[in-house]
Parts: sequence; C-alpha cells; structure tokens
Amino acid sequence: MTSPTTEPSGTRIVERCEALARCSEETAALTRVFLSPEQRAAAGLVQGWMREAGMGARVDEIGNVVGRYEGAAARAPCLMLGSHLDTVRNAGKYDGMLGVVAAIDCVHALHARGVRLAHAIEVVGFADEEGVRFGSTLLGSRAVAGTFDAKVLDGRDARGLSMREALRDFGLDPAHVGRAARRREDVLAYAELHIEQGPVLEAEGLPVGVVTAISGATRYTVDVQGMAGHAGTVPMSLRQDALAAAAECVLAVEARCRSESDVVGTVGRIEAAPGATNVIPGTVRFTIDVRAPLDSQRRAAAADVEAAIAAICARRDVGVTIARTYEERTTACAPWLQEQIGLAIAAEGLPVRRLASGAGHDAMAIADLTDVGMLFVRCRGGISHNPLEAITAEDAALSARVFLRFAENFRPVAARP
Amino acid sequence: MTSPTTEPSGTRIVERCEALARCSEETAALTRVFLSPEQRAAAGLVQGWMREAGMGARVDEIGNVVGRYEGAAARAPCLMLGSHLDTVRNAGKYDGMLGVVAAIDCVHALHARGVRLAHAIEVVGFADEEGVRFGSTLLGSRAVAGTFDAKVLDGRDARGLSMREALRDFGLDPAHVGRAARRREDVLAYAELHIEQGPVLEAEGLPVGVVTAISGATRYTVDVQGMAGHAGTVPMSLRQDALAAAAECVLAVEARCRSESDVVGTVGRIEAAPGATNVIPGTVRFTIDVRAPLDSQRRAAAADVEAAIAAICARRDVGVTIARTYEERTTACAPWLQEQIGLAIAAEGLPVRRLASGAGHDAMAIADLTDVGMLFVRCRGGISHNPLEAITAEDAALSARVFLRFAENFRPVAARP
Repeated sequence: MTSPTTEPSGTRIVERCEALARCSEETAALTRVFLSPEQRAAAGLVQGWMREAGMGARVDEIGNVVGRYEGAAARAPCLMLGSHLDTVRNAGKYDGMLGVVAAIDCVHALHARGVRLAHAIEVVGFADEEGVRFGSTLLGSRAVAGTFDAKVLDGRDARGLSMREALRDFGLDPAHVGRAARRREDVLAYAELHIEQGPVLEAEGLPVGVVTAISGATRYTVDVQGMAGHAGTVPMSLRQDALAAAAECVLAVEARCRSESDVVGTVGRIEAAPGATNVIPGTVRFTIDVRAPLDSQRRAAAADVEAAIAAICARRDVGVTIARTYEERTTACAPWLQEQIGLAIAAEGLPVRRLASGAGHDAMAIADLTDVGMLFVRCRGGISHNPLEAITAEDAALSARVFLRFAENFRPVAARP
Repeated sequence: MTSPTTEPSGTRIVERCEALARCSEETAALTRVFLSPEQRAAAGLVQGWMREAGMGARVDEIGNVVGRYEGAAARAPCLMLGSHLDTVRNAGKYDGMLGVVAAIDCVHALHARGVRLAHAIEVVGFADEEGVRFGSTLLGSRAVAGTFDAKVLDGRDARGLSMREALRDFGLDPAHVGRAARRREDVLAYAELHIEQGPVLEAEGLPVGVVTAISGATRYTVDVQGMAGHAGTVPMSLRQDALAAAAECVLAVEARCRSESDVVGTVGRIEAAPGATNVIPGTVRFTIDVRAPLDSQRRAAAADVEAAIAAICARRDVGVTIARTYEERTTACAPWLQEQIGLAIAAEGLPVRRLASGAGHDAMAIADLTDVGMLFVRCRGGISHNPLEAITAEDAALSARVFLRFAENFRPVAARP
C-alpha cells in the first residue's frame, strides 16, 4: 500500500478549496473577481501550496498563478494543467478551484516520491474565466494562448474603473500582458480537471468522465408580435395571442433538441407584455440557447428551431423576429488526450464514460495554443454556480489519482502544425 | 323625414364624449378617477346636458350624476339608463361615457318632440366602475343597488387618503352613502349602452348587438416548481424545466377554451426564474383567466384546465400549485329585455346579433336591484382601455336611435319577487 503522502489527498484538496472560498469579498458568500484583493489572497495561498509541492511559482503579466515542476531535463517542454481561480457571484467552492488544487496535489505526490518526468508539469490558476468584473470571459487563458484582445483593456467595471487601471492597481503593467503568452513549442498539451456542472455522472453512478468536446452554442432573442386585447371580450378564434404562440415555440425547441442525443436547447427567459391577468399578451420576448458537441449538429438543430418558430408564427398569424445574438464554435478535445485520460480511468478499474461539456472552460481558449483534454468529476445534483455546489473527498482523491496517472504516463504526440 | 333635433345626433354624442375626455388629470391622456376634481368637472357637464334635455339633475350620495325625465304621471317608476363616468388610466373616450351621453341624447329627442312616456326615464352616470382609485370596482352602481359595502370606506388611495376622507373632500357625507340606494318598486328595469370592447361586431359588419349575459370569471395563479440548471450541462432527458411545463399548460388552456364557443381562457402574465439565457427555468408563475356566459360552462372549463395542468406537471415530474384567486358568477341579461332591445334593432332593419359580454359592467351590480339589459356598439378593432378606442358618429347615432326606440316602446314585466 502506498504511503498517503505519495498519493493525492482528497481531504487536503477539499480543505484547500474551502480555504480558497474564504478569500471572498463577502463573508456569507463566495465572490472573487479578477484583480481583486481577494484574488491576491488566493494567489498567495496557491503559490505557497505550489512551492510546498516542489514547484517554482510566480504570478504572470495578467495575474495568473503559474507553478512549474521541472522535468528530468532542464527547460523541458511542459504538460500544462490548470483551471481558474475567479468565481461568479455567490459561487460554489469547486468550479475552477478544484482543477488547480487537484493538479497541485498531483505534483505534491510526485515530489514526495522524488519523481521527475520526461516533461515538465506546469499548473496554472487562471485569473479570469467567468468574466464577472469586466463582462469579458477567459481573460487569463487567452493571455496564455496569445489571443488576448488589447481592446478589452479599455473595458470598465461596475465602479467605472478600466481594466488597464485595475491591472496597474494590482501591480501589473497593462503594456506587458502580451508577455503572458506562451510559445507553442514549450507546451505539449493542456489538461483540465473540472466538476461536471451537470447531472450525468451522478445519474450513472460514475465519479469521473472524459470530455469529448466543449459544446458550441447558438443563442437567439425572439420577439413575437401578436395583438393585445381584453381577456374577456376577444373570442378565441379572433385572437393573436403572442404568449400562446411563444408557448408553442418553447415546446418546439424542447422537442427538436430532445430528438437528438447530446443536443440541448433552453428557453431561459420569457417576458409577456402588457402582462396583466385580464389582458391577452400582445408581445412576448424569449431567449433560446442551443448547444451540441458537434458544430454540424448544433447548426442543424438551430436551423430547425428557426424554421419551426417561423412556421408556428405564420400559422398563428403573429409577427416574429428571430435575432441570433451569439455563436461560438465547438472546441474538440484532442482524441489522443481523450485516449490517455481514458487509460488512466480504466487503470482505476472504472468504466470510461465519454461526455461533452455543455459549459465553457479555460480549455476553449488554450485550444488556440495547444491540444486540450479534460477530466470531469461528479458533483452533487449537477449543481453549479451556486453555494450548494458539492463534491465528496473520495471523488476528489479518485479524480486526482486518475489525473496524476495521466500526467505520469503522458506521452506527447507530434506538435500541431 | 324626422327633424334632426328630434332624433339623437351622432355628432353631438361624439363631441360630448370628447368634451368629457378633456376632464382629465393629465393633459396628454385621459385619466379620471372617483371623487377627483376632474370627476366634478365631468359631473358638471353632464348635469348641464341633462337639464338641456329636460331632465332634473342631481349628484347622489356616492357622487353618481342622476337625471330624471318625468313620465306622463308624476313619480312614475322609471326605466333606468346609464353607464359610468370614471376611467382607467390612459383611457379611451367611450368606455362608460358613451352610454351616459347617448342616453341623454335619447331623452333630448323625446323632450324635443314633447313626448312623455308611461314611465319615467332616469339616466345615471356612475361615479366609479373601474375601481382605479381605491381598487374596489362598481362603487357607484353598488350604492344605487343597495349593495355598497361600508367596509370599503376605509380603503385608501395611493396617496393614503381614505375613501371616507375623499367623500368628505368632495362635499359628500360618508354616513349617507346608503341613501343612494333605490327602492325596487321605483325602478322597472336597467338598460346600458356600451362599446363592445371586443372585435365580434366589427368582424361581422354589424353596428350593434344584444348582450345575453355578462360572463362570470375564474382566475388562477399557477406556480410550477421544476429544477433550475445549467443550459449547457443538463441533458434534455434529465431536465425538470418549469417553463417547458408551463408552455404546455398555456397551450392546454387555449385548446380547452377554443373547443367550446363563447368560452375564453387567457394566460396574461408569466414569469420564469431565475430568468437567464443560459439557465433552465426552475420556477414559473403564470395567471389564468377563464370566462363563459354560462356558469356551468365556465366551471366545467376551469375544472378541465385544472386537471390538464395537474396531469402535465405530473407527467413532467414538476411540482405545481394552482390557486384560485377570483371567482365571479355570470350576470344574465333578462330575456324580456333582450327581446325588447332586439325588436328595436330589427326595426332599424338590422340583424339581431346576440353576444355575451366578456367584460364587467355596471349592469352586474344593478342586477341586484332590477332586471338588466345591454346594447353593445361596435368599436374599432375591438380596442378598449386604450387611447385608440374609437367609434364612428354613424354608429353612435344608430345605436342611440335603437336605444331610444327601445326606451319609447319599453313595456315592463311584473316586478321580480
């Protein structure tokens, strides 16, 4: 039996996530945004743990915490592991942080065993993934990937402070953000451990899964224009009820997306006007969010949804405007990384469940720099972005063991052209 | 050919509705509420027109304007004609006022011809039907019917003034409201001319119709309890989407009410929470309003709607609470008054279209005092409670001619037990 110090510790991982959760701008809830004093505190904790695990640690030019565990040879290219250290408002303790803390625990175990690998390992705690403060997401990982858009430096937070000023206040030079970008030849691949943020693994009784892709998304805002009228005086046959039409559209979104495994479609917002008990709704606005692991699936589903809505509204003689407000392509996880992560899961005697990620992750940005892979960890009830977010220490330990095995056995393929 | 002065004048009726519309608390819109300075101004105009038409005129103890045109014999019981003089906020010019002004024009014509009938005619401009100021409707007609609830005197308006104080400020004594009540033996029947507030007559190319009943209504607030979740990470098969369930309920209300002529059902308000594009709605609240000319029809439809919602939510495994928030029985229009109004329409060479009123009217309250009948007048687009409310001078003239013919030929039946 292996000594506890040479294996990742689920208890320590969970305790460290809890310690990070205390770096919050509120006492009763967890909120930690980009370039805040709380982020500085979190970065301090993380650097301390990195050094304790035998890594060199620094804060880069955008505020990411970067730890490096050298390989057998000096300046070897690295396997990059990471996730983010910022949170949404009133967040859970694991979204992002678990991936940073678990990766450090993997290195901790290697260090305790005195093992050096053929490749270096770097652990990055990205400074901004959620985009809460400046409304622009993936700032930390984009800086590392070299895709940081300098225009966002002019963005301002709710108090009117620009990102440029916030970087200076944090002790960083906005003119040097570009230096956070890594060279392709220095990074062999990127792997991210993250809670699933969905209910699939829990429903199937599995602690971990291999991510196949981070689904792309298409979003719409739909405006239905009917005719408002008195709820008592307009016969059903003479109505142009915008809400009845919208209701049919909601069900059409559901039916189309339900018809194909892995496709999801959601109407998350709906507003009916004038909005009185005794008035037939004259206008309704609702949103649609369609996602799928394959861009072709998503585009086909979105086109079918658009056509269904147009047909419903034409048949009901109500006007409709369908505006596409957002479109993001799918980020594929590299098959060779899926394969190696899958082997590590199988080595723990577990079935290899492959699943797509419907949520966005830092890996989306890093995919512009190098091939990416992800390991999902079961979370309670699929709940996330919520203080109720939870995992077990057992799942933390198991997922870190899988992640360590993957990192130890990691064999790079030829660099991408 | 009859001289214009001895027939109702559509132009004068429309001009007088416009003059009343200038008695408003706003300059750019029509808003005139119970016991307001604008109501005093409107009451002054109406009393002047009543006197010009040969009537005695007074303001009663609740603020109604009451005009009396004596019959051939002194103190003869009356046929009461009327409608209301208050408005909703940002109102149209005809809802209520048309019925008062047209009735005065009928008496004007009788007076011009020097005709006295076997019965007196009283015209009442009710002081409150809409209930805007104190949130309690039909105050004027309830006082006349003797069903005024003294408890509402303690109700307060938006500025905190009680109805009791508002009555005193208007120059009325709250202790004397009961004196506005009329004795049954003094009122032979009540008839109200009103815009349809719906699109039926316009759709059928008819200027007037006979009202069969004022539909009762059942209202609900429905709360659907699903499970909020990430729009990207929860597969369709694992969702408990409160909005998808509610959408099915909206369509069930529509389908049930559409299946039976004269029944109407409306979902006028809907709110989905948390209400973000990328979050599956966890809870949805919506309202239902069901109306029908027969109480049995309405109760059956409401029961079917309740059962359909329960079944939909059970099938979708979401929770639901269906709360009945309001229930009002149907007020039947007396068949003998329908008959006499129909004869007056037929005498103008028009088809007699019978239709139910889905909206409430003063006749609902007066039905506690005496038998009631109503004549509907076509309005443009069925629009009401809106500055776009409109009628033509031709329809005003025609409907007043019908109403005058009805009043002239009116033959009472035996008083109700």
